[in-house]
Amino acid sequence: MSARASTAAVLSIGDELIAGDNIDTNAAWLSARLLDLGRLVVERRTAPDDGASISRAITELAARAGVVVATGGLGPTPDDLSRQALAASMGEELVVDDESAAGIARWFKEQGRELTELNLIQAKRPSSARSLANERGTAPGLAGVVGGTPVYLLPGPPREMQPMFEAQVAPEIVSAGEAWRSIAIHTFGLGESDVARRLGDVLARTDGPLAGTTASEGVVTVRLRAPASQDAELRRLERRVREILGPAVFGDGDATLASAVLDDLRRREQTLAVVESCTGGRLGAMLTATPGSSDVFLGGWLTYCNRFKRELVGVDDSLLTTHGAVSREVAVAMAEGGLARSGADQALAITGVAGPGGGSRAKPVGTVWIARASAGGATDARRFRFPGDRESVRTRSAMAALGMIRLASVDAEREPLLWQREPAGAEPRTP
Amino acid sequence: MSARASTAAVLSIGDELIAGDNIDTNAAWLSARLLDLGRLVVERRTAPDDGASISRAITELAARAGVVVATGGLGPTPDDLSRQALAASMGEELVVDDESAAGIARWFKEQGRELTELNLIQAKRPSSARSLANERGTAPGLAGVVGGTPVYLLPGPPREMQPMFEAQVAPEIVSAGEAWRSIAIHTFGLGESDVARRLGDVLARTDGPLAGTTASEGVVTVRLRAPASQDAELRRLERRVREILGPAVFGDGDATLASAVLDDLRRREQTLAVVESCTGGRLGAMLTATPGSSDVFLGGWLTYCNRFKRELVGVDDSLLTTHGAVSREVAVAMAEGGLARSGADQALAITGVAGPGGGSRAKPVGTVWIARASAGGATDARRFRFPGDRESVRTRSAMAALGMIRLASVDAEREPLLWQREPAGAEPRTP
Repeated sequence: MSARASTAAVLSIGDELIAGDNIDTNAAWLSARLLDLGRLVVERRTAPDDGASISRAITELAARAGVVVATGGLGPTPDDLSRQALAASMGEELVVDDESAAGIARWFKEQGRELTELNLIQAKRPSSARSLANERGTAPGLAGVVGGTPVYLLPGPPREMQPMFEAQVAPEIVSAGEAWRSIAIHTFGLGESDVARRLGDVLARTDGPLAGTTASEGVVTVRLRAPASQDAELRRLERRVREILGPAVFGDGDATLASAVLDDLRRREQTLAVVESCTGGRLGAMLTATPGSSDVFLGGWLTYCNRFKRELVGVDDSLLTTHGAVSREVAVAMAEGGLARSGADQALAITGVAGPGGGSRAKPVGTVWIARASAGGATDARRFRFPGDRESVRTRSAMAALGMIRLASVDAEREPLLWQREPAGAEPRTP
Repeated sequence: MSARASTAAVLSIGDELIAGDNIDTNAAWLSARLLDLGRLVVERRTAPDDGASISRAITELAARAGVVVATGGLGPTPDDLSRQALAASMGEELVVDDESAAGIARWFKEQGRELTELNLIQAKRPSSARSLANERGTAPGLAGVVGGTPVYLLPGPPREMQPMFEAQVAPEIVSAGEAWRSIAIHTFGLGESDVARRLGDVLARTDGPLAGTTASEGVVTVRLRAPASQDAELRRLERRVREILGPAVFGDGDATLASAVLDDLRRREQTLAVVESCTGGRLGAMLTATPGSSDVFLGGWLTYCNRFKRELVGVDDSLLTTHGAVSREVAVAMAEGGLARSGADQALAITGVAGPGGGSRAKPVGTVWIARASAGGATDARRFRFPGDRESVRTRSAMAALGMIRLASVDAEREPLLWQREPAGAEPRTP
């Protein structure tokens, strides 16, 4: 198997993509599926609905990769030019495919819609290409060969494209390459550069599995990838990464920080309630995004205004006037009030300055107090200062609250590794 | 102005993109912004974290377009190779940029984090390139010239990339071409094909402004675009679109359905509380994503478990046992309980089956009851059946709840235009 035979290229076609009106989800979906099938995507392109641009992209990508999968531009309107472009790259004329024409006529009849002349354009194919049947729409796909490389042209709508790829393209591709395995190990509490420093030569590009890190909303993910034949090496590397990163690792694959926290609590047969101010429901939404969260998560209070902090969870008015809504005292009172009123085993409370307004010298935008109260334990409260805009501060706040539950369940000795607190002297005195 | 001078190319860099782990949103955002600035994107590419691939893409795109904007691969880890690749395309060595080094050191100090040697890699630039300051993170951007074409290299995280583009790249790009104006008109309550059918020939491709529709989370947006010299025509078309779509239009530009609802309520000096079950905080999070929401939105209750529905907002236990948690009766009791306990002018309640489990023949996954109670008015309750997965059902539910407030404030005569209800006969009887 040559190196090129194990590669692929993906081409997305459409003015709506290149104008930025639509986000291209097909390219990511195809990339992941191709990798599963043993094809590393070496290049992706997006081309406008312009025949010459599409044809040039097809020809260039076919020269660089072992297979090209393109989507879009197969519709019935005059700005759909992918069919013609493939014919140009193949140096062929378009001919009518009788089977496709019959299929399109049948589809229109089933839908009770009238067939127009425009729709029959969709039955055309370059003379040596094959048509791929479309069970979900009118546009057949096409399979041709450009400069010795197979080129597949699929419809743009994901619900038509995906089943066509699975049924008619994947079986032809998989036989040509070796499948890859990939492992995603998720961490929370360390910055991306901290993770990289700790992993050191694991990330250095040498032989063996590929390794890389990505960061999103405070979660740093280490991804390891290798051909299936290197599975033992991949597992060895996975164990090493988990050992190095220790309690910062909360899960792998589809796990989220919220699902890991729910799993922890479920194992301990504990329940959770929340009291949210600046996050306004973000924490509850994260917890309930996981199916089956209802056996752990009871619900809670959105105490966005100060009156709700007093009336709904019993925060003493004097705390609000003396320390302000964004303070250790109010966060603690919110968490303890929520715990008492809910009968939950643990309660999380968040109060902060999400911005862009509302900041002060003592409590700049991004200042957030988070408290965790637990039945029969001391309440833990921490002050954070999150960077970024309003949504970033809110998301980070909800994630940090989840992190405080995780933190309480891991080895306390290693705690300083996980949280970088502000220097003690940085804490502002309240007037 | 030559034709090429009015074009642009966009390059997205990262293994996480090309492996399909992440969906590329930067390319769409940059494409739309570049078009606004008078630059038509003629090609987009995605390259893996591989120096040779990135450098080749930069060089080829610089030969084809008037400006290249690339994102990603500027992190501090060894798999971030965009900086080196730009240097290779420019035929230069990397040198340390003293100002960037000082900026990175300052950022770490502000965050109370320890600076590592790895982070200082981010201060390097090709010798003739300029560094672009990053206010939101550690990675400075770079501006260089390849074969006479300006090439900008920006960090991958959107919240760092977007402000850097606006402040430091857009002003340099706009002067080279004729700016385009674009107008985004947002609607809620109609499907994308309904909008397209109503607009008819407005969307047909002829002369004059470009028009297109996109749909996301139930919001259908009509985008109109034209060179600045056709501004009068653009405004005329905007008026026509607004007239045709009538009360379905809730705003334009940066407006969200939540911000439009908050504006409506603010104008009427009304306050709002929420009672959420299956959405678990999603509605509150949407409302509080808008800065300044606190003068309208008071807060609410996350009554995820039935006990909270009873204890927190006073839903009668007999309603839960007779009709089930997902029923008109319980939705109404949640909304009215929330209204009474909050003292708000309006209260929204949501209860439904978000899935994937929990569905039944009578109440399949996607069945959601939403109620709106208002001081001195009758409570309105509606049953919805949303398609898609758990997150889709939850998001649509929160959006529909906001839609019910909007609906109450627009001409009731036109209501049937806005909501496609299930046929009355489709409503299941509760046992």
